[in-house]
Amino acid sequence: MRELILGGARSGKSALAEQLAAESGLEVVYIATAEARDGEMGERIAHHKARRPDHWHCIEEPLQLAATLQQQAAANRCLLVDCLTLWLSNLLGAGDELFEHERQALLAALAQLPGRIIFVSNEVGLGIVPMGELTRRFCDESGRLHQAVAASCDRVTFVTAGLPMTLKREK
Amino acid sequence: MRELILGGARSGKSALAEQLAAESGLEVVYIATAEARDGEMGERIAHHKARRPDHWHCIEEPLQLAATLQQQAAANRCLLVDCLTLWLSNLLGAGDELFEHERQALLAALAQLPGRIIFVSNEVGLGIVPMGELTRRFCDESGRLHQAVAASCDRVTFVTAGLPMTLKREK
Amino acid sequence: MRELILGGARSGKSALAEQLAAESGLEVVYIATAEARDGEMGERIAHHKARRPDHWHCIEEPLQLAATLQQQAAANRCLLVDCLTLWLSNLLGAGDELFEHERQALLAALAQLPGRIIFVSNEVGLGIVPMGELTRRFCDESGRLHQAVAASCDRVTFVTAGLPMTLKREK
Repeated sequence: MRELILGGARSGKSALAEQLAAESGLEVVYIATAEARDGEMGERIAHHKARRPDHWHCIEEPLQLAATLQQQAAANRCLLVDCLTLWLSNLLGAGDELFEHERQALLAALAQLPGRIIFVSNEVGLGIVPMGELTRRFCDESGRLHQAVAASCDRVTFVTAGLPMTLKREK
Repeated sequence: MRELILGGARSGKSALAEQLAAESGLEVVYIATAEARDGEMGERIAHHKARRPDHWHCIEEPLQLAATLQQQAAANRCLLVDCLTLWLSNLLGAGDELFEHERQALLAALAQLPGRIIFVSNEVGLGIVPMGELTRRFCDESGRLHQAVAASCDRVTFVTAGLPMTLKREK
Repeated sequence: MRELILGGARSGKSALAEQLAAESGLEVVYIATAEARDGEMGERIAHHKARRPDHWHCIEEPLQLAATLQQQAAANRCLLVDCLTLWLSNLLGAGDELFEHERQALLAALAQLPGRIIFVSNEVGLGIVPMGELTRRFCDESGRLHQAVAASCDRVTFVTAGLPMTLKREK
């Protein structure tokens, strides 16, 4: 079962994803896409870590998400990817060729993965379109990615103020 | 039947509107409010055009939307306006007097139009309120416009990650 | 009954809250958190005031919301707080110590208040994460606050284009 949890900044999307992973009864592998490049991001990562059960295996992978998912996915496992937004941001910073390759690899892999996969991602497209060309590109690619991932997912949930709204539920 | 499709950047709102127009069984007239003033906007317009059926009649009207709708609307036609956001932006750039005149003309016309009308618009008010006074004005007028158009529409749909949520459905 | 009305800029959230207060049949006390520090904010405040019934008692309280709620709440009263966003912004400007104290005081008071309480707040976390550290902090604290208040509320509603979506309804 593949699932996408969308929400704004501090909307409770990660907490919901973690709750679903914990309740799955499966072995949980947490795949973090964040890199602690500055103090603020380091604090955010620490804040997330403190909330997770100690026995969850944690993998940090900022770029090669498709390969990591293929290596880790198993029928008795729940993979929790937090979050697609930072992965996209990392990829756009790494150049168009790698971005396009990894994007397509993720979408191709997605349909084939065994077990349960939960993606967390930030909705960023509902404010004023920002001035910078790069930010606008990020905003556009984020929207495109969400559409493509949502199309491959069995469930899509939008979280606001910690409260889930179901956008798609196929099983 | 009047319909408003709201969504963020690359949320799939235009694709949904085009699908509904195609499925209407009516003659479709596509009313584009965009002007290709720079290369990036030119690309976005070309991207949208490539997706539309060749037999749809296309009209470009950046400002006088009410008059265009009144000329084009007919019982056997579906008019697809993509999008209100650019029309609003064009109008705010053209001065307060024209803006207020065209805004009121649209809302007055809306209640009278025969056939099917589908409006696409960007939700832009769910991020941090921007610093610039003009941007804040745009954000406010966008919200006011959506409220007024939604009140006149039979259906209002919010699209996230390509997935529609029904906000209003009267018939 | 405690209720949170969330929405974007000019989404119709205040109008919905005022309608609910008017329909409550209770004595309404309107608690404004805005301070008219500049002409634009003065106009917004005047715009809101013009819409409210004259017989509503109005209190302006930019910072000490918990104390005001505790003083004013009564079984036969409906308190309408418009809005949490400005209160949060005022508090963050007043320093971390006061902010943390008032935030905790509000959440502690919330569970105990008699009568009906309606909070209005802006959803600001669904756009691009802004560059400034203070704005990012505001965005994060806003999301945290909404989660905490929503958890204590019986009803939570999200307003888009004047149309309500129910996120939570316990009674």
